[in-house]
Amino acid sequence: MRFFSDNAAPAHPRVLEAIAAANRLDTAYDGDDWSRRLDGALSDLFATEVRAFWVTTGTAANCLALAALCPPYRSILCHRDAHIEVDEAGAPAFFTGGAKLVLLEGEGAKISPAAIADACDAIRDDVHQVQPAAISITNATEYGLTYSGDEVAAIGELAKQRGLSLHMDGARLANAVAFSGEDLADLTWRAGVDALSFGFVKNGGLNAEALILFRTEFADEIAVRRKRAGHLLSKGRYLAAQLLAMLDDDLWLENARAANATAQKLGQAAAQRLLYPVEANEVFLKATPDEAARLTGMGFDFYDWGPGQIRLVASWDQQGDAVDALAAAIAKL
Amino acid sequence: MRFFSDNAAPAHPRVLEAIAAANRLDTAYDGDDWSRRLDGALSDLFATEVRAFWVTTGTAANCLALAALCPPYRSILCHRDAHIEVDEAGAPAFFTGGAKLVLLEGEGAKISPAAIADACDAIRDDVHQVQPAAISITNATEYGLTYSGDEVAAIGELAKQRGLSLHMDGARLANAVAFSGEDLADLTWRAGVDALSFGFVKNGGLNAEALILFRTEFADEIAVRRKRAGHLLSKGRYLAAQLLAMLDDDLWLENARAANATAQKLGQAAAQRLLYPVEANEVFLKATPDEAARLTGMGFDFYDWGPGQIRLVASWDQQGDAVDALAAAIAKL
Amino acid sequence: MRFFSDNAAPAHPRVLEAIAAANRLDTAYDGDDWSRRLDGALSDLFATEVRAFWVTTGTAANCLALAALCPPYRSILCHRDAHIEVDEAGAPAFFTGGAKLVLLEGEGAKISPAAIADACDAIRDDVHQVQPAAISITNATEYGLTYSGDEVAAIGELAKQRGLSLHMDGARLANAVAFSGEDLADLTWRAGVDALSFGFVKNGGLNAEALILFRTEFADEIAVRRKRAGHLLSKGRYLAAQLLAMLDDDLWLENARAANATAQKLGQAAAQRLLYPVEANEVFLKATPDEAARLTGMGFDFYDWGPGQIRLVASWDQQGDAVDALAAAIAKL
Amino acid sequence: MRFFSDNAAPAHPRVLEAIAAANRLDTAYDGDDWSRRLDGALSDLFATEVRAFWVTTGTAANCLALAALCPPYRSILCHRDAHIEVDEAGAPAFFTGGAKLVLLEGEGAKISPAAIADACDAIRDDVHQVQPAAISITNATEYGLTYSGDEVAAIGELAKQRGLSLHMDGARLANAVAFSGEDLADLTWRAGVDALSFGFVKNGGLNAEALILFRTEFADEIAVRRKRAGHLLSKGRYLAAQLLAMLDDDLWLENARAANATAQKLGQAAAQRLLYPVEANEVFLKATPDEAARLTGMGFDFYDWGPGQIRLVASWDQQGDAVDALAAAIAKL
Repeated sequence: MRFFSDNAAPAHPRVLEAIAAANRLDTAYDGDDWSRRLDGALSDLFATEVRAFWVTTGTAANCLALAALCPPYRSILCHRDAHIEVDEAGAPAFFTGGAKLVLLEGEGAKISPAAIADACDAIRDDVHQVQPAAISITNATEYGLTYSGDEVAAIGELAKQRGLSLHMDGARLANAVAFSGEDLADLTWRAGVDALSFGFVKNGGLNAEALILFRTEFADEIAVRRKRAGHLLSKGRYLAAQLLAMLDDDLWLENARAANATAQKLGQAAAQRLLYPVEANEVFLKATPDEAARLTGMGFDFYDWGPGQIRLVASWDQQGDAVDALAAAIAKL
Repeated sequence: MRFFSDNAAPAHPRVLEAIAAANRLDTAYDGDDWSRRLDGALSDLFATEVRAFWVTTGTAANCLALAALCPPYRSILCHRDAHIEVDEAGAPAFFTGGAKLVLLEGEGAKISPAAIADACDAIRDDVHQVQPAAISITNATEYGLTYSGDEVAAIGELAKQRGLSLHMDGARLANAVAFSGEDLADLTWRAGVDALSFGFVKNGGLNAEALILFRTEFADEIAVRRKRAGHLLSKGRYLAAQLLAMLDDDLWLENARAANATAQKLGQAAAQRLLYPVEANEVFLKATPDEAARLTGMGFDFYDWGPGQIRLVASWDQQGDAVDALAAAIAKL
Repeated sequence: MRFFSDNAAPAHPRVLEAIAAANRLDTAYDGDDWSRRLDGALSDLFATEVRAFWVTTGTAANCLALAALCPPYRSILCHRDAHIEVDEAGAPAFFTGGAKLVLLEGEGAKISPAAIADACDAIRDDVHQVQPAAISITNATEYGLTYSGDEVAAIGELAKQRGLSLHMDGARLANAVAFSGEDLADLTWRAGVDALSFGFVKNGGLNAEALILFRTEFADEIAVRRKRAGHLLSKGRYLAAQLLAMLDDDLWLENARAANATAQKLGQAAAQRLLYPVEANEVFLKATPDEAARLTGMGFDFYDWGPGQIRLVASWDQQGDAVDALAAAIAKL
Repeated sequence: MRFFSDNAAPAHPRVLEAIAAANRLDTAYDGDDWSRRLDGALSDLFATEVRAFWVTTGTAANCLALAALCPPYRSILCHRDAHIEVDEAGAPAFFTGGAKLVLLEGEGAKISPAAIADACDAIRDDVHQVQPAAISITNATEYGLTYSGDEVAAIGELAKQRGLSLHMDGARLANAVAFSGEDLADLTWRAGVDALSFGFVKNGGLNAEALILFRTEFADEIAVRRKRAGHLLSKGRYLAAQLLAMLDDDLWLENARAANATAQKLGQAAAQRLLYPVEANEVFLKATPDEAARLTGMGFDFYDWGPGQIRLVASWDQQGDAVDALAAAIAKL
């Protein structure tokens, strides 16, 4: 009964089927039938012309995008708890050639226009201090909170005023959409997002993520950077096929809704213990070491989130029984 | 009837089955059951203790290894036609932080100890010139030739004398082994190889390659560099499972033998036209534009290798009929 | 009457004389008579065998040292207000190839062993988080405070326990020595410092700083990195001669004492306004915009250090009259 | 009697005087009176608006320029014997973040438009091969040959057609001008040069070189990169003053003429032994080891340029007696 991470869940059967269906001779790299359909399929989904690239990790998607948006000698503003800061082993510096992350505060890993403006204002405009070039936000955040389209648009507006680019780490964007019901376009390019890491692996994919460029002028550079970073797979059709399968009949949204529903159920059972409102598929709880141990003893698996805190993550495939059992167990603690 | 590239071929059914069998909840990254078996399985195969890492591309395997073997301010000696020089978009410089490739000559993309020694001798030992740190050889080479164990050992011996590390790009090492029947250990660590990129994708794999460290002291660094380069997949079990499937019952060797046999058949049909002896699974031919056009007109697909030259690559799954037809067509040109 | 920066002051006449005396034909780079005396002269000064390199900026000295002490994929712990973080345009990331600065808090830009230990403890020991490799402290700090030998030794001891290297930015180390009277050796290598940027330019030099390695095994790497960064000057003798002139008869110490004495005089006049105790040659004061404007109106030049704060820096050559005038003006505000 | 390198020569007295004259308090970095005059002085010299930066080495000038002209994932075409390839410790890769040098052949280290075009044509236009971004030529070359304005213009024209930038390493541009009498503008920006490293140190300077941007839109980026590389000196006035002294009354040209005249005298004495025509201030001779030893025995110092070859370099300050003696000695060999 595992609530440790959505990365631990299996891939959706339709994803596996798509891989099997792609198992025939075709052109290498991204010249195959599936890869060539990606731009169109994702342009349709986002209701604007995009350039889309499959990659195998969110880190690759994030950092290829950031490398195009930020030169080596400038900085990216992000939350102190952003995945790019705490969980990517310094990959942003590697891909950009040394760009700096400027760390902002904000409840639940969300950043506000005010925090961004303050951070920019604190930087002297001279050659001694590193000047900002981009903002990166995560939606849903590392604490399962979501930005609304209006919130993203406020950041996008500020970015434009300050001459900054805007990147969105959408490892769990599907969950954000499933939560608010807002339109993908409103949450992204209409709100000023220039590049998006659109996550599928945590949401029932196998090993394909999508890097989406709304500023398509960066596409050629990204294509080269992807190859140079060893992220251009020779049999790319197996990645493209996964993404197309996730888009078919909105499987991405269906999976995210399932995961969110589980999180809501757990959140309701733990209402008194919640560290953050439950919006996407993550639930952060206060729990004493003793309480945590009791849950573990009952066979539940989760992440120890520091002193007195635990993290539960719901996956697309969570079994109703296990969820009910965990909800009941939490309620009884 | 495609002889364009072994990258275009499908994955072997047993590889797909292994992916399906791995499609259950397990620990993320490389903490899963399959990933944890890799070191052991590859140590058995190589008859020595190794540390093994799955990655998704040969470029990643090559360049992660080179980054551990060569600091940013030194150089790697390789053939002028090496994949790392001509087909990886400058990835060695990206991963190493700017190390230089020193390009050597040699027939059929093979380099000799003498060429290596000459290149080293030509470098003044001072801070103005970039000092060498490593040698990288490709076996089988980009022209389908192979190094014997003795040939590798001669290079390994020289490397030791000169204080250089030795990397082998084994994108088609399976084909080299299938050609000579030599032992994997004799071709690698016993001959002085420090790190090996062991290719599976061109040989019936789907998207998993293995980076093998014979100098296991680099393992921790490689693990960090892999993550930092976005090459630590969250659902790593699907990669590990592929590799294990390729090792089971020596599927890797069986596939390579099949591809080599096809190449031999084509090579015999084209004996008068061969640019290089046929050893692994590649056949390089002299063919006038008119001759090439005739083959294309008959439905055969291959790589135009510059003026008057074509490249045929045999895959593990080549159909006997198509091979016979191409052999006959070449013989009749 | 300038108290803006010690960088604005002229060079000491003996430094200029040394340059003139070096103006004859000699070997290029650092093969000349003066450069070859540096290791010995600085080994004598520090009472241990060191390897010494002239460079032209503190940024170069700091970042060449950090590049040797920290690989691209690890981090350097320093104060949030450290020069390497706020005033070097991201040079540490450039020279190291992307190493991260982890920013610590601490009064007056000093960091404590406790702050270092806490920062280390907060880093999960896995490949997802950037692991620390080095500590960098500034003595005297960016706020003119000094570390005693015991304080440095406590940090050095912790560094050893944690497997971290220790770098000291000594842009104003001379002022720290002049303040405490402690021995250079006690403040550096005996306290566990591995590499030191020993500043001369702010202290009456013209354009030569010294990078001192107490861990001499890094010398060859540093020599290469210096060249590769364009910091190996062809007529190096003019830099070496400057450094030797600063060492002769302890000119470095004499200059620092003069600057410190000026700072003390200003500090006493401004005792009620001091933001930090005056230890080295910097004086930070509370001053309303109106007060600051009055001082400016009287012809005094200084750095506006944010709302309600000003910074005065004393140079080696400050005229007694101007100092008395400023002290009187402050006292009367 | 040293003919080893023009880097070994002393600085011209007027350069030293200028340094002494700058030895008064002024603004740090490049806000001082001298630095602020550079753009104007060099714009006048080149008869067009330029942006000029002092740096301390040719390596820094070359590589800062190349970093602005070439992204990390593209390449720079240069001669196999170019200083940036053989004598800068890999600095181009360091400053650019991994750009590749593509090495061209050509007599006397000169490259031709045909060689450039061939090299470009040999690069497949795809993401697997590194695409070119810039050309770098050296004038005078590493073998003392010069490009005429027409020759540079032919390369500049090709660069424009191919979408490439053009950099000139002018470490000895003064000697090229002194040789041909051509106009600086005709040899540089009118011929399509985008950025120029204008050397002074080999020509009587002390430690200041000039980086000249004809494409002034790169100036802000260069200013940041200079700081980030540790090349923004705090007391920049001493560098600017050197450059201004070299420009005053065309001292740069006078010095270059003197050095060239010495080279011509030596070249005439060695007419039968010349490996290259003598154009700038370098003379390459055939000389057996025995002959070389005889010259050495007579007190002449020079560079052993490989088997049977020696290099003599004339400096601005060479004594007529020594020159006559060497000329006579060579003639008598």
